[in-house]
Amino acid sequence: MSNLTIDAERLWDSLMETARIGATPDGGIARLTLSEDDRRVRDWLGAQCDALGLSMTVDEAGNMFATRPGTRADLPAIAMGSHLDTQPTGGKFDGVLGVLAGLEVLRTLDAAGYQTEAPLMLVNWTNEEGSRFSPAMLGSGIWAGVYSREYGDGRADARGDTFGASLDRIGYRGEAKAGAVRFGAMFELHIEQGPILEAEGIQIGVVQGIQGMRWFELTLTGTAAHTGSTPMGMRRNALLGMARVIEGIDRIAKAHQDAVGTIGFLEISPNSHNVIPGEVRATIDLRHPSDAVLDRMQAEVEALVQDAAGAVGLESRLEQISRTAPVVFDAECIASVRAGAQAAGYSTRDIVSGAGHDAAHTAAKAPTTMIFVPCKDGLSHNPAESAEPAECAAGAQVLLEAVLDYDRRMAETRKGAAA
Amino acid sequence: MSNLTIDAERLWDSLMETARIGATPDGGIARLTLSEDDRRVRDWLGAQCDALGLSMTVDEAGNMFATRPGTRADLPAIAMGSHLDTQPTGGKFDGVLGVLAGLEVLRTLDAAGYQTEAPLMLVNWTNEEGSRFSPAMLGSGIWAGVYSREYGDGRADARGDTFGASLDRIGYRGEAKAGAVRFGAMFELHIEQGPILEAEGIQIGVVQGIQGMRWFELTLTGTAAHTGSTPMGMRRNALLGMARVIEGIDRIAKAHQDAVGTIGFLEISPNSHNVIPGEVRATIDLRHPSDAVLDRMQAEVEALVQDAAGAVGLESRLEQISRTAPVVFDAECIASVRAGAQAAGYSTRDIVSGAGHDAAHTAAKAPTTMIFVPCKDGLSHNPAESAEPAECAAGAQVLLEAVLDYDRRMAETRKGAAA
Repeated sequence: MSNLTIDAERLWDSLMETARIGATPDGGIARLTLSEDDRRVRDWLGAQCDALGLSMTVDEAGNMFATRPGTRADLPAIAMGSHLDTQPTGGKFDGVLGVLAGLEVLRTLDAAGYQTEAPLMLVNWTNEEGSRFSPAMLGSGIWAGVYSREYGDGRADARGDTFGASLDRIGYRGEAKAGAVRFGAMFELHIEQGPILEAEGIQIGVVQGIQGMRWFELTLTGTAAHTGSTPMGMRRNALLGMARVIEGIDRIAKAHQDAVGTIGFLEISPNSHNVIPGEVRATIDLRHPSDAVLDRMQAEVEALVQDAAGAVGLESRLEQISRTAPVVFDAECIASVRAGAQAAGYSTRDIVSGAGHDAAHTAAKAPTTMIFVPCKDGLSHNPAESAEPAECAAGAQVLLEAVLDYDRRMAETRKGAAA
Repeated sequence: MSNLTIDAERLWDSLMETARIGATPDGGIARLTLSEDDRRVRDWLGAQCDALGLSMTVDEAGNMFATRPGTRADLPAIAMGSHLDTQPTGGKFDGVLGVLAGLEVLRTLDAAGYQTEAPLMLVNWTNEEGSRFSPAMLGSGIWAGVYSREYGDGRADARGDTFGASLDRIGYRGEAKAGAVRFGAMFELHIEQGPILEAEGIQIGVVQGIQGMRWFELTLTGTAAHTGSTPMGMRRNALLGMARVIEGIDRIAKAHQDAVGTIGFLEISPNSHNVIPGEVRATIDLRHPSDAVLDRMQAEVEALVQDAAGAVGLESRLEQISRTAPVVFDAECIASVRAGAQAAGYSTRDIVSGAGHDAAHTAAKAPTTMIFVPCKDGLSHNPAESAEPAECAAGAQVLLEAVLDYDRRMAETRKGAAA
């Protein structure tokens, strides 16, 4: 325990203050990346960092890095952060909490005059949501070298406006080359975006990694025919085949611990009351923390589709349309979160993120982990997204404790290595 | 056998001649009811009837009745006919064949100088398709007293144009009151609109009646949630429940001989790759020739929905949105079709119509039956709708034989009653 306590009210006030930037009448936020509202919230963040005397660097992808010196300037910074952009139907906590909690940690240290050994850094990643410019996690992806600056600049929104032009327009094209700003570790606090912590009454999720994800498009083709005059024995009902696939995917996911599997998108043709569906198209979403398990699940889905199509006399086409490898977070970072939560007296459980985060990109470049706090009904990307002040404060306190623990832990490691 | 043979080439020429009225580039017909093209094909039919010296009556719903006298003017006419309107994506045979085959029968009798005892009548019903003005079978429904003239006149198309105004505009508002023109029997020749005859290599379907039909709208409601962060055990996946209903309806229909059951329309919400479906809406179409069986099927579907919704934790709403009673055709009319087909040497099978027809309305007012001929791949309401010249000719020949058989049959019945 650090004997330092974050200011829960100050954190909440900052959350509510930024929530006015891009606020929607239903209580949500529509603060699309690189919009005027994004500029305003970035300016606000810059002013808060200025007030703390932090030095701000912006890179060529608009990622913002504010640094607070440690006692040793030669050490890489310990970073905290997330993103300030939202979905068009976003809420007040997704992303914002991770940035403002990091700010609150720095404010708390500043007020206490406490200096870490390593520098601390607050990060705001550009375009995590990907809802204006696809793909999601673009800023951290450019930082990590997954995407080039040119690729990023060329991404266009629905009206043809580009990422690069928007970045220039709002004045957040920085001088720093992507990837030039480095840090020694990253802690990202985030709402869970799922129902587990709330259902189990747990305050802190100690995040172990991010699930791997495989998406497939499945098309089943039979014969469209009159529902009244086509006997059951003479049908090739594409929807019947798809029903068996829906059921089978649920069964496959339930058979593998920690797996999820879903058909969320489905389109049938011709979709008429009195015509047997001739073609059904769907996307299959499989996720698991282990690539080996995903391999097995994929093989089972392939067999399922063959069986279901064969039994109904359908043609099938199954194509992988997206694949993301699982991310395993850093053991030392995880240990610091666990120690921090324990020190602060919060209940914890290990958890794996089902959603993607900037932490997936930072994990490839630096020791990384995440901290989850509960959100009401597991809801996010929704104006009704909600977290309690005490839940947000718990997350920020654990973020503070984890960062201080990690700073001490690294100092001891260095001592051990020097001895 | 009558020793009379219809002229297969003349019939085919008439089919191809009328197919030019409203022809579409893909080989189909778009001859919407009460359109200019409908007026042209009606004028064409009127001219053919004039050439045969028939007397034409048009009723206030635009139904056309052309009468050829028999040897006894006191007997009710034996009618033949169907409809000349098509779907927007209609083919060359649906409806048209029944009218033109009736015309061919009258031409054959005229050429042979053969006179039946009862008068014969050729009927063209208005708006069988119902695709411009809903409901389908409106003209025969007004004739049968199922709908009032006022109800019919008020039906509006997608642009707000009404049935009544369109009828006046094309000049086919007749003087005769709906239902005033009566007949003693009705024979409707039609393409099967299903695959059974073609699959079994049968030339003539001896139609026993029309299936009863019940339509339901089913809504299953669960919880929309993130596909990645919502564990399998915490889901209320509305699509999983619907998959079980789709499978169950197939099972229920297969368990009842001659039943069909289908979900043809399905809509899921929010229908996004990475969101568990929170709500799914579908229509259920159940058909069977017996109302008692339909009662049992309906009860089984109700139990199925309860089970499927219960197992997944969904709310369900099942509403009947349409119900049509089965139609059983007249035994004497059916006997005449069977005798006629046998006399002409065609293979037959008993069959029940899965689609609705004007014959459903006439059956309530006069002895009625239908004759089916095969159509390629069971297709209709499609430009690719197709029947061979020989198949059409077989249908027309059986229509001729059936009408003559029925005329003789009734004459014998009258003799028997008089004796």
